[in-house]
Amino acid sequence: MAESEFQLRFGIIGCARIARKLARAMSLTPNATLYAVGSRSLAKAEEFAALVGLSGAVKTYGSYDQVLDDPCVDAVYLPLPTSLHVHWAVVAASKKKHLLLEKPTALDAAELDRILEACRSNGVQFMDGSMWLHHPRTRKMKDLLSDERVFGQINYVYSTSTMTVNPEFLQNNIRVKPDLDALGALGDLGWYCIGAILWAKNYELPTAVEALPDTTKNPAGVILSCTATFHWGISSNTSSAATIHFSFLSHTSMDLAISGSNATIHANDFIIPYEEGSAGFELSCGAKFAELHIGWNMEPKVVRVECELPQEALMVQEFARIAQGIRTYGHQPDGKWPEISRKTQLVLDAVKKSIDLGFKPVQL
Amino acid sequence: MAESEFQLRFGIIGCARIARKLARAMSLTPNATLYAVGSRSLAKAEEFAALVGLSGAVKTYGSYDQVLDDPCVDAVYLPLPTSLHVHWAVVAASKKKHLLLEKPTALDAAELDRILEACRSNGVQFMDGSMWLHHPRTRKMKDLLSDERVFGQINYVYSTSTMTVNPEFLQNNIRVKPDLDALGALGDLGWYCIGAILWAKNYELPTAVEALPDTTKNPAGVILSCTATFHWGISSNTSSAATIHFSFLSHTSMDLAISGSNATIHANDFIIPYEEGSAGFELSCGAKFAELHIGWNMEPKVVRVECELPQEALMVQEFARIAQGIRTYGHQPDGKWPEISRKTQLVLDAVKKSIDLGFKPVQL
Repeated sequence: MAESEFQLRFGIIGCARIARKLARAMSLTPNATLYAVGSRSLAKAEEFAALVGLSGAVKTYGSYDQVLDDPCVDAVYLPLPTSLHVHWAVVAASKKKHLLLEKPTALDAAELDRILEACRSNGVQFMDGSMWLHHPRTRKMKDLLSDERVFGQINYVYSTSTMTVNPEFLQNNIRVKPDLDALGALGDLGWYCIGAILWAKNYELPTAVEALPDTTKNPAGVILSCTATFHWGISSNTSSAATIHFSFLSHTSMDLAISGSNATIHANDFIIPYEEGSAGFELSCGAKFAELHIGWNMEPKVVRVECELPQEALMVQEFARIAQGIRTYGHQPDGKWPEISRKTQLVLDAVKKSIDLGFKPVQL
Repeated sequence: MAESEFQLRFGIIGCARIARKLARAMSLTPNATLYAVGSRSLAKAEEFAALVGLSGAVKTYGSYDQVLDDPCVDAVYLPLPTSLHVHWAVVAASKKKHLLLEKPTALDAAELDRILEACRSNGVQFMDGSMWLHHPRTRKMKDLLSDERVFGQINYVYSTSTMTVNPEFLQNNIRVKPDLDALGALGDLGWYCIGAILWAKNYELPTAVEALPDTTKNPAGVILSCTATFHWGISSNTSSAATIHFSFLSHTSMDLAISGSNATIHANDFIIPYEEGSAGFELSCGAKFAELHIGWNMEPKVVRVECELPQEALMVQEFARIAQGIRTYGHQPDGKWPEISRKTQLVLDAVKKSIDLGFKPVQL
């Protein structure tokens, strides 16, 4: 099959709101298509198909199993509540479906390892749904960070992920329910902060992680808000640190600031860019104070990066490209994506452990 | 004396580079004037007078004592190395000179208390040299922070103060010498971060402070770089946190980010604005994600604040205004400024103690 003709046929199991974003992404991506949608009821699946403008053009099923049993489904996008991930992800992999799994990937790394082992032993690709990693801005920032002459050593990274929610969300949303998304804000928002820190540090795991006692939980024990710190090394030559803050209790923010010996980068919309067509970040390099320190010699430079497809479509495209490589050319699955997810989950586990231990440092 | 005619006559003791900035500020400020300069040698004092364009127009002395003994000197600006502060500040106060003391105010709060007691018992005004507190942008941000309908509860504050320095600085600058500025980057840069956090939190002292093991010292034991965390309260209703990072080892930055339940504020030049004439900050309020979370409903608003005088001139002006109130109208010294300095120094001491204890939490 010619590369230009390949289309990865997706099944979506679970009609979460975010699945509509992914359905749109699949429609925008040349090498992927939405083939089937499964929900716990057929009516819900049909409602979803109508919502995304695909009534009659997409198969609808009244169960997840039917999607996974459809031999025409090549890959599954799985946006179910986190507590259901391990079961359905393992079933999907065992049915030889490539797996695009919404974050947080699992309740802990042990669960994720079961998922990853199922993908490995069945030869299917695994990727989590961290869309921002696929934005060309992210690559542009990484190019600058990797150029030691520009950036120097990365000494400090800071990230937030906070989201304005209404009282109804705090009462009823899946993400604050201990039986559905027990990781709460840590899983939903902290995942991004942790991912950003690891991304900036080239996925070098921190030496230790420590949550702060400002952590807030709801009466059911689900984390609503937290600050945590990371550090790497303790020798004067290699030490560095990072801080993260994630919360359902603060106004929407998604800050990423990276401080190097020669430059700094700031992006305050790193998870979801303000607009789809392009995204920016501020680069400051060579800044000094003016004579008498009454100003600076320059303001940060705004670097804008065009984006032909939305970042979620680029994610789907990359996932489909790898899947095609496996099917058409016999390639091995790409180990990079499971490794990124696993390290993110490991650090997430450590933050949770620190909270559970009463805000003690947790070594990694 | 009419208010418009009053001029506070400053003596400067010590010809540090920053004193040139203050000399300029005094020349720009209607109610203050630079009257005398003292250095350890008369030649140095004369060189300084020439540098600031006041040869022959300012008294020059070859000792600090001569400045303090001059009955025409109303107030002293003291930019000496920190280890010399307590001695000369106490002498200045005992000679009834109002005291504008460069930061960090002292090596620890015990020393600062001796200075403050000397000012109190001699009826003179004390203020530290934190210029940014006097910028109208700072007041504009505070107005927004204080309006609970706009900002809601302040949940998280983040601040950095990092500065590109050259290898010569790291070898020879006063600020890395244990006998001169033993607090190193903590005193020079961390002072601002701590001050910003306290300012944002209305000077409510944190419950606990903890430094991170990324702390770097030079071979003489002077702090070059550090990350530290603060938190307030442990109940779910009032808990909040802050993180700071200060360093001589990273590219210049001065970030202040404040996260509230209803809004966020960002300023990345909060200590020294990029330019003198005006300064900006980003306010985000009411931001939500667009349908399908493919963007935001708005970008942050840039709020610009004009500044008729440089912030250091506004500081001098405010200091002179208070001094005039004391002299002309018999007012008491303004207790707000010593309190701000003392709380900043207390938290600074706690960060240092946490480092000294091996990065343990320190209660306040």
